[in-house]
Amino acid sequence: MPATDFSPAAHPVSVFGLGMMGSALAAALLKAGHPTTVWNRTVAKTGPLVAQGATPAETPAAGVAASPLVIACLTTNDNVRELFAPLAAELRGRTLVNLTNGTPSQARELAAWAQEHGIAYIDGGIMAVPQMIAGPGAYILYSGDEAAYATHRETLAALADTKWVGTDAGLAALWDLALLTGMYGMGIGVAQAYALIGSAGVPAKDFAPLLTDWVIAMTQGIVPGTAEAIDSGQHLTDVSSLEVNQAAVPNLATTFAEHGVRDLLFGAMQPLLDRAVAEGYGADGLSRLVDLLKTP
Amino acid sequence: MPATDFSPAAHPVSVFGLGMMGSALAAALLKAGHPTTVWNRTVAKTGPLVAQGATPAETPAAGVAASPLVIACLTTNDNVRELFAPLAAELRGRTLVNLTNGTPSQARELAAWAQEHGIAYIDGGIMAVPQMIAGPGAYILYSGDEAAYATHRETLAALADTKWVGTDAGLAALWDLALLTGMYGMGIGVAQAYALIGSAGVPAKDFAPLLTDWVIAMTQGIVPGTAEAIDSGQHLTDVSSLEVNQAAVPNLATTFAEHGVRDLLFGAMQPLLDRAVAEGYGADGLSRLVDLLKTP
Repeated sequence: MPATDFSPAAHPVSVFGLGMMGSALAAALLKAGHPTTVWNRTVAKTGPLVAQGATPAETPAAGVAASPLVIACLTTNDNVRELFAPLAAELRGRTLVNLTNGTPSQARELAAWAQEHGIAYIDGGIMAVPQMIAGPGAYILYSGDEAAYATHRETLAALADTKWVGTDAGLAALWDLALLTGMYGMGIGVAQAYALIGSAGVPAKDFAPLLTDWVIAMTQGIVPGTAEAIDSGQHLTDVSSLEVNQAAVPNLATTFAEHGVRDLLFGAMQPLLDRAVAEGYGADGLSRLVDLLKTP
Repeated sequence: MPATDFSPAAHPVSVFGLGMMGSALAAALLKAGHPTTVWNRTVAKTGPLVAQGATPAETPAAGVAASPLVIACLTTNDNVRELFAPLAAELRGRTLVNLTNGTPSQARELAAWAQEHGIAYIDGGIMAVPQMIAGPGAYILYSGDEAAYATHRETLAALADTKWVGTDAGLAALWDLALLTGMYGMGIGVAQAYALIGSAGVPAKDFAPLLTDWVIAMTQGIVPGTAEAIDSGQHLTDVSSLEVNQAAVPNLATTFAEHGVRDLLFGAMQPLLDRAVAEGYGADGLSRLVDLLKTP
């Protein structure tokens, strides 16, 4: 497909890394009418995107040269460093949007390297699985070079809703990992719940509707309530005190043991609850644990 | 308030244990028009309920004798045993509904004791905080003597919606604890998420709306999806494989360490993910962990 087919609102973008997520990103850009250059270590993966109108880059340098906006979606940030370190001169004056999963400190290191070389760096955290890209509910957190973000925000909006979280390049990864932490906690709780109820022969489908409704109802209460307590420093509760929870947790640990189901949660929670009560926080709510998690 | 004020649909009930929850239960019964007798170890706690129309029992035996339906809501099942063991003769032919927090095995032991003495035993798990009793969204799980449940279900419905889970008296506690497990996982994940985002100075209220929406969206996908995988034995996923999660978790553990926030989740998850991948389940989803939690 020749570049002249693209509308004046079209902006050339190069996408590096065509795993499931990178391929979904490139496909979304093509669908939105942006001239899209693609590169992947394994050349075969460019095939389906070329069939959708993408231009394959012969070399990484050619891929960078093709667009003012370069998006990276590789396996790790080590891959990002290896790929782009030799291309600093080619990247000068362009914007690198790094959507590779990584840590805040990795993002900050890459931002420092980019600044040294006159490259505008934006880090991003994708809050979606590949199937959700360019669909409802998906969004990407961005942080780093705010001017470059203002220039490219509209183009990036073709991928998913955009959410700017600050000029510290590490913030997108931090928000991303904090959200994932909430999900992992819920996921481990749910896995343990199914293991426990399954140990008594209850079919998971009988239990699922109650578990869904219960976790959602508790999330709707606990997440905003905890935020209010943290920001105000008022941790007292008349709903579910740490003392009440300290008394309830041994019942849970015992039941898991009696049913032969491994416990990843309660053994870890008990010392924190014991410490909170011993330090005089027994009448406080869960929000007090947030403070204790931040102190050794 | 004399008993003659109560309608023909009114059924005498005795409530033992007037902590926050027991008091809420007794108040709900009174409000629904049931002649309610109350007993508490500390007599002073009967005051507010007597003001609402309850009859205080002079002795536990008198409390049992007052009603065919006896509800216990004590601190522990040890308290239940201590209180009712000497009253087996008085309880004969009556129904004991035990809403004390406990384990399935404690409920089964009490059911066996009750059967020996001709007492109909129902165990219950209250899925609500006291403030929610007799309001929308609250429900109580029941298991044990099904005939007694049929007799008293309508009276019990004054407390909260009723949900029967089976004749094994331990099931109500098992469902209760399994639901609590889902909540505790979510709660620990949320506490860790707030601790992490707070370590970078982000106000909790800025993060809360995204965290609420994210955890709810993930719950809506993961809880029913996991049930389907468990019941069908089909664990393969094209969304978020254990291999992908195994690669993501070290980023999380590292970030918590770098931000000085204690990690209760990822250190515990890593060995389970490693084992799942080593055993050839890398392409499976979270549902596979449920099986692994059930095997040593």
